Amino acid sequence: MRSQGPTGQLPQDHPLLTGLTADSALLNQYRGGRNSAGEITRPHRRPVWFMRQAGRSLPEYRALREGTTMLDSCLDPALASEITLQPVRRHDVDAAIFFSDIVIPLRLAGIDVEIQPGVGPVLGSPVRTRADVDALPTLDDAAFAPITEAVKRTVAELGSTPLIGFAGAPFTLAAYMVEGRPSRDHLGPRTMMHADPETWNALAAWAAEVSGRFMRAQLMAGASAAQLFDSWAGSLGREDYARHVLSHSAEAFTHVQDLGGTTPEGHRVTAPLIHFGTGTGEILDLLRAAGADVVGVDYRLNLAEATRRVGAETPLQGNIDPALLPADWSVLESHIRSIIAAGSGAAGHVLNLGHGVPPETDPEVLTRVVSLIHEIGYED
Amino acid sequence: MRSQGPTGQLPQDHPLLTGLTADSALLNQYRGGRNSAGEITRPHRRPVWFMRQAGRSLPEYRALREGTTMLDSCLDPALASEITLQPVRRHDVDAAIFFSDIVIPLRLAGIDVEIQPGVGPVLGSPVRTRADVDALPTLDDAAFAPITEAVKRTVAELGSTPLIGFAGAPFTLAAYMVEGRPSRDHLGPRTMMHADPETWNALAAWAAEVSGRFMRAQLMAGASAAQLFDSWAGSLGREDYARHVLSHSAEAFTHVQDLGGTTPEGHRVTAPLIHFGTGTGEILDLLRAAGADVVGVDYRLNLAEATRRVGAETPLQGNIDPALLPADWSVLESHIRSIIAAGSGAAGHVLNLGHGVPPETDPEVLTRVVSLIHEIGYED
Repeated sequence: MRSQGPTGQLPQDHPLLTGLTADSALLNQYRGGRNSAGEITRPHRRPVWFMRQAGRSLPEYRALREGTTMLDSCLDPALASEITLQPVRRHDVDAAIFFSDIVIPLRLAGIDVEIQPGVGPVLGSPVRTRADVDALPTLDDAAFAPITEAVKRTVAELGSTPLIGFAGAPFTLAAYMVEGRPSRDHLGPRTMMHADPETWNALAAWAAEVSGRFMRAQLMAGASAAQLFDSWAGSLGREDYARHVLSHSAEAFTHVQDLGGTTPEGHRVTAPLIHFGTGTGEILDLLRAAGADVVGVDYRLNLAEATRRVGAETPLQGNIDPALLPADWSVLESHIRSIIAAGSGAAGHVLNLGHGVPPETDPEVLTRVVSLIHEIGYED
Repeated sequence: MRSQGPTGQLPQDHPLLTGLTADSALLNQYRGGRNSAGEITRPHRRPVWFMRQAGRSLPEYRALREGTTMLDSCLDPALASEITLQPVRRHDVDAAIFFSDIVIPLRLAGIDVEIQPGVGPVLGSPVRTRADVDALPTLDDAAFAPITEAVKRTVAELGSTPLIGFAGAPFTLAAYMVEGRPSRDHLGPRTMMHADPETWNALAAWAAEVSGRFMRAQLMAGASAAQLFDSWAGSLGREDYARHVLSHSAEAFTHVQDLGGTTPEGHRVTAPLIHFGTGTGEILDLLRAAGADVVGVDYRLNLAEATRRVGAETPLQGNIDPALLPADWSVLESHIRSIIAAGSGAAGHVLNLGHGVPPETDPEVLTRVVSLIHEIGYED
C-alpha cells in the first residue's frame, strides 16, 4: 500500500467511503485482503472481472454500438453507462469496468483522433518533433464533463458493485501519438526516447498529465478504483522502462494517489490503483514501484512467480489465458483452478483474464467462468 | 555444444570442413570462441551480421524484387542467390544469411501459401482440425532442388564468408498454419495445444519435420550454420513452451545435429545451430535446451543477464536495438559499445540486431555499424 495516508479529497458520499462498496469483495482484495479497518478479511465470494469485459463478445453491445463510432459512444454518457452495465448484468462480475478508451483524453483535448474499426487509434497528425509536442493543446477540466456524467449515471445504477476507472499509461499513449496508429514494434517512441530524450520526456509528461487527470475525473465522479493500462510496455527492455518510462507512469499515479477519505466507521481509505501491461513479466516489480497497489499479470507468467517478483504483500489481478476460453469446459476449469492455486500466496487475488476478451468469445463461457469462481470461493 | 560427436555426413568438400571457412570468425564465435581443434581463439575481427539483412532497406533488393512475388523470388536460384549476396557486398558482414522464407517448405509441399505484401504469409486453407492435419501433404526431398541450387550458387560466390541457413520453428510455422495468416495473439495455435493436444502435436510434428529437413537441405548444399527462428514463441508462457513446444523444436534440430565431419587437419566439427525468438527472455534457457549451440537474444534483454540465464559456456548472438538505428551516431555507437561490454561474459558473441532490420533503415547506417564493430575488434 502507498505510504502517504489519504487526504480525504473524495466527497463524503463517494461510494468508496459509504455503505457496502467500501468493504466490497473486490476492494478488500485490492487492499491485500484487509478491510478498511485494516483487518484481514475474505470477501464473501472470490472476486472476478474481465479486462474490457464490455465489448464485441456481447450481442447487446454490438446492437447498442450500431451506427455510433467508438469514441462517440465513449462520450455519450447514457450509452457509455449502459455499455458499462451490460457485462455486470450478464456475467455477475464483481466490478464494473468503465467503458471508455485510452485516447479519450486526446479527443477531449481537441486532438484529431479516431478509432478505426479493425485498426485501432489513428491520429490526424502524428507527434514527432519538439515543435509537435510544444503545440499539444492543454486539456480543460471542463472537458471531462461527459466522463463525469457517465460515471455518475453508472454508479447510481450499480448499487454495491464497485466501478473501476482506467486510463492509458504514458508510454502506450505516447506510442500511439508518435506512430499515429497502432504498430507492432513501437519503433517510433522507442527511437525518440534515445534519439531525442528531451522531446520524449516532454511528450510522456504531457501524456502522464492527461491520463492522470482522466483517472482522477473518474474517481472523483464515483469510481472506486482505477487501472493504468500500459498495453505496450512489454516492448521495452527493463533498462529502457526504468530510465525512460517509469517516472512518467509514477507521475500519472500522483494525480490520484491522494484520493481517499474517511468511511462512516471512521476508517481512512484510498482508492486502490492497479497497473497492467501485456508481456511485462520482466518489469512487474517496476510496474508496482511506479506507485500501484496492485499489479495485473499477463497470462504468460505463473502467479506464484509473479508473487516472487513483486512480493507477497502485493495483491495480484489475473491471469486466465484467453486462449483457453474456447477449450472444453474441463480443460478451462482445470486451468482456472490452477490459477487460483498459483495466486494463493499473494496478499489478495482478483481473478481476471491475462489479456483482453477475444471478440469471438462465447459470452456464456464467461458467465460460466464467473459462476465457477464464485462457487469455488475459498475452499481452504 | 552437443554431446554426440559428428557423424561425418557432410561431403568432404563442404565449406564447413575445408579452408578458411571452417575456422572463420563467425563459426569460431559460434563454437564458444574455439577453433576446430578445440583451442580458444579470437576471430581476426569481431563478427557481425544482421537478421534478414537482405531486404527492403536495400535499393538494390527492391530493384531486383520488382515484379516477382516473395516466394517466387525465394524459389528462383539465381535471384535468391543474388539477394543473399547483396548485403554481404554492401555491408561487409561476416556471414551471408540465405534469402528465403519460413513458409517455403509449405509451398514446396504443395500447400497454397503466399506472402501478401504488407500482411505476411496467407494460406488458402487454414489447418484447424485433425482431418486437416492428416491431409497435410508429404514433402519430397526432390522438392528442395531450387533451395539446393541457390545455396550452391551462393557458396560458390562467397569465398571464405560462411552462409547461414534458416527455418521456422514448429510453433511459429504451425501458428501461421492454424491462423491462416499473421495474428497478434496467436490464439488459434495456443487454444489448440490445450483444447486438442493430439491434433496440436501432430501438426507441430509435421512442421518440425519440414523445417528440420529444410535446414538439412541448406546445410548439405553448403551452408555452414543454421538458425531456427521461433518468431512467435514469446507469446507463450514458460509452462506452455516447455510442455507443448520444446520437444517439437528439439525434433527439428535432430534433423541437423548429426551434420558435421572431419576437417583437412583432422578435427571433427559439427555445424553450429542457432535458436532465436523475439520476447523470449523468460524461456531463453529452454531455447538452448532444445538443442541449439547458440541463442539469439532479443533487444529487450541485457546480454549479461542472458548469460546468467543460459550459462557462460553458451555463445550469444545479438542484440542491437533496431530502434536505435535512426538515432544520432554517437547514441548508436554508445549503445553498440554497451552491448559489446554486456556480451563479454559469454563464451562467444556475434553482434546482431535484437530483431529484424526495419524496412526504412538507412543502409549506410548498417554499413557504418559493421565497420565500427570491426574497428572495435577486441580492445582488451
